[in-house]
Amino acid sequence: MAVSAAAAKEQAGLGALDRLLAATDAEMQRVNALILSRADSHVEMVPELARYLIEAGGKRLRPMLTVAAALLFDHPSGAQTNYAAAVEFMHNATLLHDDVVDESDMRRGKPAARMVWGNQASVLVGDFLLGQAFLMMVETGKLDALGVLAKAATIIAEGEVFQLSKAGDLLATPADYDQVIRAKTATLFQAAAEVGAMAGGADETGRAALRDYGMELGLAFQLVDDVLDYRGESGAMGKNTGDDLREGKMTLPVILALNDANPAEREIITASLGKPDAPDTALAQIVAIMNRHNALGRTVDEAHEHVRRAREALAPVADSAMKVILSDIAEFYVSRAY
Amino acid sequence: MAVSAAAAKEQAGLGALDRLLAATDAEMQRVNALILSRADSHVEMVPELARYLIEAGGKRLRPMLTVAAALLFDHPSGAQTNYAAAVEFMHNATLLHDDVVDESDMRRGKPAARMVWGNQASVLVGDFLLGQAFLMMVETGKLDALGVLAKAATIIAEGEVFQLSKAGDLLATPADYDQVIRAKTATLFQAAAEVGAMAGGADETGRAALRDYGMELGLAFQLVDDVLDYRGESGAMGKNTGDDLREGKMTLPVILALNDANPAEREIITASLGKPDAPDTALAQIVAIMNRHNALGRTVDEAHEHVRRAREALAPVADSAMKVILSDIAEFYVSRAY
Repeated sequence: MAVSAAAAKEQAGLGALDRLLAATDAEMQRVNALILSRADSHVEMVPELARYLIEAGGKRLRPMLTVAAALLFDHPSGAQTNYAAAVEFMHNATLLHDDVVDESDMRRGKPAARMVWGNQASVLVGDFLLGQAFLMMVETGKLDALGVLAKAATIIAEGEVFQLSKAGDLLATPADYDQVIRAKTATLFQAAAEVGAMAGGADETGRAALRDYGMELGLAFQLVDDVLDYRGESGAMGKNTGDDLREGKMTLPVILALNDANPAEREIITASLGKPDAPDTALAQIVAIMNRHNALGRTVDEAHEHVRRAREALAPVADSAMKVILSDIAEFYVSRAY
Repeated sequence: MAVSAAAAKEQAGLGALDRLLAATDAEMQRVNALILSRADSHVEMVPELARYLIEAGGKRLRPMLTVAAALLFDHPSGAQTNYAAAVEFMHNATLLHDDVVDESDMRRGKPAARMVWGNQASVLVGDFLLGQAFLMMVETGKLDALGVLAKAATIIAEGEVFQLSKAGDLLATPADYDQVIRAKTATLFQAAAEVGAMAGGADETGRAALRDYGMELGLAFQLVDDVLDYRGESGAMGKNTGDDLREGKMTLPVILALNDANPAEREIITASLGKPDAPDTALAQIVAIMNRHNALGRTVDEAHEHVRRAREALAPVADSAMKVILSDIAEFYVSRAY
């Protein structure tokens, strides 16, 4: 019996994830121990809230990327443990602040931290995690990697503000969307891969290769996330289907659908865009419109294009088992879209 | 005609401020230019919001402290410009997040940024400023000073969370209050003075002296702020009188008053504590109760004690005109309480 191309790709992606998990396991145990110990504080509410989020079962894709990038090169220095934990702290700080900004109810399949401890504590514990991230970087004694993460922190914040300024903007373009996801999402993947390469002793060529790889991987990741927000058959993200629509987020599926919609379809979309109480029936109608214009399919295609570029970016790196894993793992990110 | 002791101290404090402004003027022009340029971004809302806050007329006490500490020593390296701007960015990031956490309406005599651009943008631009602060530190190439600020960032956030956990807690003690203000306020003054000393080429003794000086100065500053929140004849802070009471903040005046209050007085205080809509008439009653038990006076006394310790901390530093200014400037912080 013929296996569909999509199923084959999904299988390859999952296989790559297993290989990545195995290849980084020993290092990730150190990273996870560091993450837990550095989420501690004598102020009780800090570790309670931080661990609630951190232990909620995120896949640790970003720190795993840092570790894998370090192991890809010949001279891993050990700094990748701190770098990887710092990357995960930056990511979690961003999640805490995002959930306040987006007024999200759910995160990783559980009530968002702000629903349990409030917006106030979520903002402040996010700040704590950001401070700890920089402190862990300082402790490695390496200023250049710290510069990569500090720069990433500013770009991520700019990207979030830009996204906010475009919320509900019917004139938002695919280029605006590209600018948003490069900044708010792909920059951290890029930084995670780059500091990993630095910890691994990569030369400038290797560092640039991992920087490009991380960026393309991050773009593919966000594109798929934005498809899942409308497809919603997946519990993988632990968020609510339709959140983006109700928050007025101008993601590629809605931009493409609006571009191609007839006036009646356009009215259906705009009536629910940015409306927190838009009903599920309206959402279903909008998904039908998206499918009519292949907006979700074209977004997945775009993700595939970035996967292709991610693989291509690795070309200058010497061949190794880890290189094959990193090349294959890009498929895993897109396989979530099926 | 005899001049009162309080008036004489106020005069000395204001005189010291003029001398500090003059002595740091050339350096502060560089700092201010850097602050403005680094608040810039291609994302329009970022500089709009950041400049609205930064240009609202804060006195730049913290960066001025960094510059003055650098000039106190023999070998200012120039790094104090970046350090001072980074300190001011950290401070403004904290203000943006605090106003969201406290739901404040006013800041520096104007509507708080969150009232103009919303909570969302305030959280995100705060994150941007924090990232820029670390980036400016990275650019100096000095890892040790960066470590001081990164550590300060985590302690400040912990202090804010601890304060939040004590909000409205009638069992809060003066020791709890001391822990809160050491962390949330005095730590940044301490870090500002310490990194200044580092930029000035101070040895370990000089660095420790400035660290202690900054801590004591910061404690005096916050004690006076917390008195002003009840005295309220001053527009200096640009916040609303009684905010602390209505937010349920357990500051020293309210802790001391609750300790000494009779049951009827206690009831009057607790009826308004943490009640956003507590009327001004209730506030006036509570201030009268505080005065009856000298709670505000004792808080000012405590501030004076920290001023004394701040001056004492400077003892190991070689005599100079700047040392006299820093010793005298401590009076300025307390003079605001009259």
